[in-house]
Amino acid sequence: MLATVIHAARDIRVEEVPDPELSTGGDAVVRVVAACVCGSDLWPYRGVTPTHAPHRIGHEFVGVVEAVGPEVAVVKPGDFVIAPFYVCDGTCANCRNGVSTSCLSGSWWGGEDKVGGVADGGQGERVRVPLADGTLFVVPGPVADDEVPGLLTLSDVMGTGHHAAVSAGVGPGDSVAVVGDGAVGLCAIIAAKRLGATTIIAMSRHADRQALAREFGATHVVEERGDEGVARVKELTGGIGADRVLECVGTKESMDQALRSTRPGGMVGYVGAPNGGPELPVRPMFNRNVGVNGGVAPVRGYIGDLLPDVRSGAIRPGRVFDLELPLAEAAEAYAAMDERRAIKVLLRP
Amino acid sequence: MLATVIHAARDIRVEEVPDPELSTGGDAVVRVVAACVCGSDLWPYRGVTPTHAPHRIGHEFVGVVEAVGPEVAVVKPGDFVIAPFYVCDGTCANCRNGVSTSCLSGSWWGGEDKVGGVADGGQGERVRVPLADGTLFVVPGPVADDEVPGLLTLSDVMGTGHHAAVSAGVGPGDSVAVVGDGAVGLCAIIAAKRLGATTIIAMSRHADRQALAREFGATHVVEERGDEGVARVKELTGGIGADRVLECVGTKESMDQALRSTRPGGMVGYVGAPNGGPELPVRPMFNRNVGVNGGVAPVRGYIGDLLPDVRSGAIRPGRVFDLELPLAEAAEAYAAMDERRAIKVLLRP
Repeated sequence: MLATVIHAARDIRVEEVPDPELSTGGDAVVRVVAACVCGSDLWPYRGVTPTHAPHRIGHEFVGVVEAVGPEVAVVKPGDFVIAPFYVCDGTCANCRNGVSTSCLSGSWWGGEDKVGGVADGGQGERVRVPLADGTLFVVPGPVADDEVPGLLTLSDVMGTGHHAAVSAGVGPGDSVAVVGDGAVGLCAIIAAKRLGATTIIAMSRHADRQALAREFGATHVVEERGDEGVARVKELTGGIGADRVLECVGTKESMDQALRSTRPGGMVGYVGAPNGGPELPVRPMFNRNVGVNGGVAPVRGYIGDLLPDVRSGAIRPGRVFDLELPLAEAAEAYAAMDERRAIKVLLRP
Repeated sequence: MLATVIHAARDIRVEEVPDPELSTGGDAVVRVVAACVCGSDLWPYRGVTPTHAPHRIGHEFVGVVEAVGPEVAVVKPGDFVIAPFYVCDGTCANCRNGVSTSCLSGSWWGGEDKVGGVADGGQGERVRVPLADGTLFVVPGPVADDEVPGLLTLSDVMGTGHHAAVSAGVGPGDSVAVVGDGAVGLCAIIAAKRLGATTIIAMSRHADRQALAREFGATHVVEERGDEGVARVKELTGGIGADRVLECVGTKESMDQALRSTRPGGMVGYVGAPNGGPELPVRPMFNRNVGVNGGVAPVRGYIGDLLPDVRSGAIRPGRVFDLELPLAEAAEAYAAMDERRAIKVLLRP
């Protein structure tokens, strides 16, 4: 079958690889209907994180189950499934606590699976899914083709934006600022509105993303950054800062922007994978009672909550896909996102 | 009148100073019934923070109102009042948000008052209280002398321990570890139990404090620190760490202990004033979804909630005072706390 392999920075290839096989009793094999490129895939692409040896890449996909091992009890061949961006058993203490990204048996696509050997990446024709019953979410009933983009966001970006909002404690009437206008930041706007925020400030400098931010519920757009950005957020929030700030980038600068834009007693919900060593400055956080909560989003646990709103059209996170390409053109998908020609690219095998 | 003045590291004197006078319409003058020494007073005492010029010190006191300015509407002469460890108006946006320590008109005892000039410290015979209606909490009815220690803890340590627990989100059935066995850490144990925690782990190496911790509700005592301390907490919490950890020290080591003792998805509530630059390591926090929340505790807002339980004896935070001295012996009070001969010292003018 064909799958995407990263060989080095800016060297993405779609290659013939071995077909996946059931290797443990709990596996499933899923035929990928759609996959996509994540902002975090751009780190190895840009060489920010090194690629020591060629390996599979991609961690967001939806598809149809083709085969399951004898221990799989829930997932059945023919099921349309959403795969979160990680593998989890759904039964360990951390999964039961709602932190399935810390699953004691968990693993990562394209990495080393703890039970069945090397894990496939998500950007391929098929994927072997370990711990299938814990990992895969079965979407009930027939799935229309135009539902696919929305469902695919539940594998990562919509759930991750939601995690930022939940971690920050967004509730009815809150003022919320969102740092980052990538797909996750835009989904965080959807999440903030869905949870009842009434003032939603999108910090964005790109006209196309500003337009989508407003469509998703942003009430204000702030283009300024640094001290000026903080001042603008304060102007819009009675002089004190936003109740909740959602940090969806992961750099030192974006975290600084988030912390300083939060009012005393407020909370930063962060989901931007930390890059560039953004150690948190505890003294100003202490002085102003600004908390920080979040992390790698346990999106598997959010799918059941978000799915009805996605299927009903109450929220439309699938709109973040502004380019669709065949899997064979994965290299162009990476380039388009790297050069900001696309917000997020959907790949069809 | 007499008041405590710090001249330099380890140079605490009780000296004759000018009597306080009403300097703004919103002031009150309070005759101090009892004051005390705070763990944070030991920083200038030990020279960890420099003392550039002699100044008043002390920020925890209870007393009786002697005089009020013409704009004071709530507080009356004769009222028994609890003063939080800071001055606040109770009406600004931050006070309304429950963060009175960030009051837009606020100030600190012994520092520069924004409206009335130099502020008195709390360790003296009398104190001029700016913004009296916002700052002072009136204790209704007659106050018995044996109630004084408990009421005095509401000026700082009991409210601060409570803030750690509230910031960490302690709730019924939680497992809680408390880092720090000073008066605040001990009060945090009271707060955790009061909020429904069922496993409460006191991290303490001192027999007298361990005994008080158990009296206050600790179910386990862990003497180990560092890796061994983390391992012991995990042993007591199903292998994953405590749901909530209350950091009541403020050093790099104590924050590290707290972060690593928290389970994935858990929260550190911290109230130890940061000392020694404990920047927070965001990557491990991110990977494990461990949040950090807290800061300088807005205790003024907690007094009304905690007071009934203190007066009924349901909680007994006044037990943290294990030494009582006359104000004239303030220097000995500091020495006793510095040398860990006392947990907390109560001073009577």
